[in-house]
Amino acid sequence: MNYDGLFARAIDDLKVEGNYRVFAELERRRGAFPRAKRLVGSKLADVTVWCSNDYLGMGQHPDVLAAMHAALDRAGAGAGGTRNISGNTVFHAELEHELADLHGKEAALLFTSGYVANWAALGTLAGKLPGCVVLSDAKNHASMIEGIRHSRVEKRIWAHNDLDDLERQLAIIPRDRPKIVAFESVYSMDGDISPIAEICELAEHFGALTYLDEVHAVGLYGPRGGGVAEARGLAHRIDVIEGTLGKAYGIMGGYIAASAAAVDFVRSFASGFIFTTALPPAIAAGALAAVRHLKSSDVERRQQQTRVEELRRRLDVVGLPHMQNDSHIVPVLVGHPVKCRYVADLLLDEFGIYIQPINHPTVPKGTERLRITPSPVHSEDDLDHLVAALSELWSRCSLERRSIAAE
Amino acid sequence: MNYDGLFARAIDDLKVEGNYRVFAELERRRGAFPRAKRLVGSKLADVTVWCSNDYLGMGQHPDVLAAMHAALDRAGAGAGGTRNISGNTVFHAELEHELADLHGKEAALLFTSGYVANWAALGTLAGKLPGCVVLSDAKNHASMIEGIRHSRVEKRIWAHNDLDDLERQLAIIPRDRPKIVAFESVYSMDGDISPIAEICELAEHFGALTYLDEVHAVGLYGPRGGGVAEARGLAHRIDVIEGTLGKAYGIMGGYIAASAAAVDFVRSFASGFIFTTALPPAIAAGALAAVRHLKSSDVERRQQQTRVEELRRRLDVVGLPHMQNDSHIVPVLVGHPVKCRYVADLLLDEFGIYIQPINHPTVPKGTERLRITPSPVHSEDDLDHLVAALSELWSRCSLERRSIAAE
Ligand SMILES: Cc1ncc(COP(=O)(O)O)c(C=O)c1O
Ligand SMILES: Cc1ncc(COP(=O)(O)O)c(C=O)c1O
Repeated sequence: MNYDGLFARAIDDLKVEGNYRVFAELERRRGAFPRAKRLVGSKLADVTVWCSNDYLGMGQHPDVLAAMHAALDRAGAGAGGTRNISGNTVFHAELEHELADLHGKEAALLFTSGYVANWAALGTLAGKLPGCVVLSDAKNHASMIEGIRHSRVEKRIWAHNDLDDLERQLAIIPRDRPKIVAFESVYSMDGDISPIAEICELAEHFGALTYLDEVHAVGLYGPRGGGVAEARGLAHRIDVIEGTLGKAYGIMGGYIAASAAAVDFVRSFASGFIFTTALPPAIAAGALAAVRHLKSSDVERRQQQTRVEELRRRLDVVGLPHMQNDSHIVPVLVGHPVKCRYVADLLLDEFGIYIQPINHPTVPKGTERLRITPSPVHSEDDLDHLVAALSELWSRCSLERRSIAAE
Repeated sequence: MNYDGLFARAIDDLKVEGNYRVFAELERRRGAFPRAKRLVGSKLADVTVWCSNDYLGMGQHPDVLAAMHAALDRAGAGAGGTRNISGNTVFHAELEHELADLHGKEAALLFTSGYVANWAALGTLAGKLPGCVVLSDAKNHASMIEGIRHSRVEKRIWAHNDLDDLERQLAIIPRDRPKIVAFESVYSMDGDISPIAEICELAEHFGALTYLDEVHAVGLYGPRGGGVAEARGLAHRIDVIEGTLGKAYGIMGGYIAASAAAVDFVRSFASGFIFTTALPPAIAAGALAAVRHLKSSDVERRQQQTRVEELRRRLDVVGLPHMQNDSHIVPVLVGHPVKCRYVADLLLDEFGIYIQPINHPTVPKGTERLRITPSPVHSEDDLDHLVAALSELWSRCSLERRSIAAE
């Protein structure tokens, strides 16, 4: 068997499709974000990052960094073990306590990432509730899909954000079977937001557990950053809220917040929680500082929203096709993998603007896009530069515009 | 449906079995390890940690901490995105380069943990090689088992370290089907080491890919810390070496090292690699410092081995039943979940010694144990205190001893 030959052929197929990924190599600069350096050959070029999920710039917030430095000095580098075997520290306990409070839940549980949180929690809840059925929104994130796949329970996909379809599917499952309705608040690639209240109503009516991924919403929505559920006063109607510490909170790690019983259940049975080294104390300490800051400070959220509105308005002025939504995510459609990468390359090389092209499998083929995430750290000048560059490239590459009236 | 009732019942079952986990809450103290503080009620008590997987104390090594502080100052807290979308930094690239070199491979790939590395890499390799069969050692770690489960390919479990069984099973698989032999070097709960050369021979003979988990060996074995495969001069015969940055290297994260084609394949197709925030630059920087240090320094490894030998000798003197093996792991058998926890509680409360009891599902029922991991940072006095405490409790709890001659 020539294994390397098999691997190489699969890679070649990706290249032919235009879906082979080449990572930009960055040097983030603390304090200068969204400015960064990019390695080109052996030289460093200046770039402005427009596609980060460090949505609010918390990754360079002084409180966060101070907490991390202090925890490194106090506790050292790593946790030294799994949560059960010597890796459980006061930093973990304190952060879980804070996250439970953030979502108004009895308890919270940390994982090494949001991906692992979804995979492990959803996989365990579904897999261990006898006869469980999972009703999964069609656009759910890979980590939820893998968690459900892991559980091997019956899975029913309901059309994206489609309440009628959800109701239809809930109605045909016997009442006495456990059911989980799994969905997101902000869908990260289109930026649309789900009808949480209506979904809760259906779930309550049919006796289903609700599992809500707020990965692209925690820190960003709600008076304390508790996510869209908090913003809409619905957190108490969600059974399990899942979030990340790697996006608006600027570091890494994931969690669920839920009833004490649900959390203890996942804590006790989830392989992906049990059999892995705990997050380093410094990560937990930094995340705690970020969560606390965004619980009391609204400045970053408001500034971000202002920037998002400004960008949308300017894109409309030059007729660039961006997807409308109620979130902070501004997807500009290109619709072709090779062109999408080409525009992104020109943005980088000629304009010092970094927006990673989003191709299959992250989004469906034909909907390739530039996903732009404006943040409080982008200036008016940054916006001007970005929109001028996009507009010029749209002309040069003969990409489609739409009239403002068409909206 | 009363979901919380279902969760609570499952938890009650665990409690009745004696398998409910209560986490000790620690405060690691940089520079003082293996000394730590433990939260008891609202008070802090002194403990000596004897069950950490920070095997060499690298979690408090000055070079590691300096590298982490510097990276925090330079790059900020988090990576800000997935590896593909703005989260790829020079820190990641440099660490991957170093890890590839450590194992003498063309390339390496980082994951958020060793768990995710196994799950994602093994799941992807198996799942994407058409018609693949995985031959998995019966004692493989949960993360490998889940990876194989994820791939949904045919899985054949061979008896632990049993070459005859492996050969028998390899022989009946058609030659033209891709096969992966998945195993570990050091099995972490028994501490035994696999016959790597013989396994490679069989794999080569039958045209199977070899996948070796060196999680409990990297940093600890081999002249440069490249693991048991390096120590035995066999790294070039292993196709994929998997390791962690969370144990001997003292922080967190996982990786594979393999051919450029295999790494590019996993990088391009593994959901658990693609759809998750990258490791923070500071973690990558700290890990790089730890790997580099242990590549050139042998002091920690030799001191650890001395401590392990001393502990074994002293346990023999008082007739405490520990499992013999060629590694740094010293499992002392208790054989009952409730007694195992009881002894561990007394060690903590009366002697300030922290050894987490290892119960089901981490080890089979009936083999509950105290898993002791001596390190260069434990002193002769620590050893004396530990063995005296164990001996006293063995008498008090009427646990079985074995005569030295019986060995
Ligand atoms: C909706 C959603 N859930 C979960 C995750 C995973 O979170 P993390 O990056 O913390 O692993 C992501 C993205 O990475 C996501 O977009
Ligand atoms: C054999 C083995 N493989 C993999 C892992 C997972 O590594 P990590 O802790 O980095 O997730 C562990 C333990 O945690 C292990 O014992």
